[in-house]
Amino acid sequence: MNSNKTDLQNIKNISNKLTQFFGEHLPITQFMELDVELYDGQTLILTAPLAPSINDKQTAFGGSLYNVAVMACWGMVYLKTQEKGIQCNQVVTEGSVKYIAPVTGRLRAICHAPSDEELMDFFANFDEKGRAKISLNAVIYDDTSMMAIDAETKPAVKFTGQYAILKN
Amino acid sequence: MNSNKTDLQNIKNISNKLTQFFGEHLPITQFMELDVELYDGQTLILTAPLAPSINDKQTAFGGSLYNVAVMACWGMVYLKTQEKGIQCNQVVTEGSVKYIAPVTGRLRAICHAPSDEELMDFFANFDEKGRAKISLNAVIYDDTSMMAIDAETKPAVKFTGQYAILKN
Repeated sequence: MNSNKTDLQNIKNISNKLTQFFGEHLPITQFMELDVELYDGQTLILTAPLAPSINDKQTAFGGSLYNVAVMACWGMVYLKTQEKGIQCNQVVTEGSVKYIAPVTGRLRAICHAPSDEELMDFFANFDEKGRAKISLNAVIYDDTSMMAIDAETKPAVKFTGQYAILKN
Repeated sequence: MNSNKTDLQNIKNISNKLTQFFGEHLPITQFMELDVELYDGQTLILTAPLAPSINDKQTAFGGSLYNVAVMACWGMVYLKTQEKGIQCNQVVTEGSVKYIAPVTGRLRAICHAPSDEELMDFFANFDEKGRAKISLNAVIYDDTSMMAIDAETKPAVKFTGQYAILKN
């Protein structure tokens, strides 16, 4: 097996851990049918069907949109610490969400990995102080615009969260 | 029946409408067992048991805490528009949450009514422009400190949301 294949297998194994984490520890994500659609080491996409998260307008409930976004960023931190082999407690300390347009189909939150430099600082702080903070963003696009996202496509929801990892 | 009794009966009928709204339109609130604990015209308290909202640390999941808080403020706007007899579309446009301490028991979000002046402005804007915005706060206290809340008691969670009402 060459190193690319090994990396991909590692990424797959690690992203399965996130699915497993939801199933074992977060009953509300099971009700929402929250699932990992994609993780390639750089981008994490979490997805959930509309039905359990529907509201009175037949669009996605604002609280569910927050949940998918907060967990996409949480998941990114989780996957990066798993890749690094770090055992730690991980918490969200702040979250802010802007609802720009209704989501009429599947809920799908996209979180991009922090830059290598940000991750290096994050892990260096953790090594030194036993705790570290990082800020992450997620966006949600309406399903109908997902097929043709470009720089002009406006997200339906923008989320920013602050996350902390702490030595166990 | 004197006018105080009538007022109380009206408040009770209107707060029942909120419970009914959750049951009819928001399946996730049913999974969370979200309930109206108190509404007296000035204060709305929404409550939910820990079990459906538990996380890996056996405390309340950050997404569920957001949901309870966003709905406490949403509920306040809903109840005030119902009291005024206004039929409108109501949405949350922004939400921000700070997690200060873990919640180890029931989730219980408290939202106080806007001042009479703020409400007058809100409804005047709606009458004039067919849309209006208002900002509301909610706090969540850990269950163990609920019995003795005073000015010194720090909340476990602080939430601020922006809400809009729009002519149907």
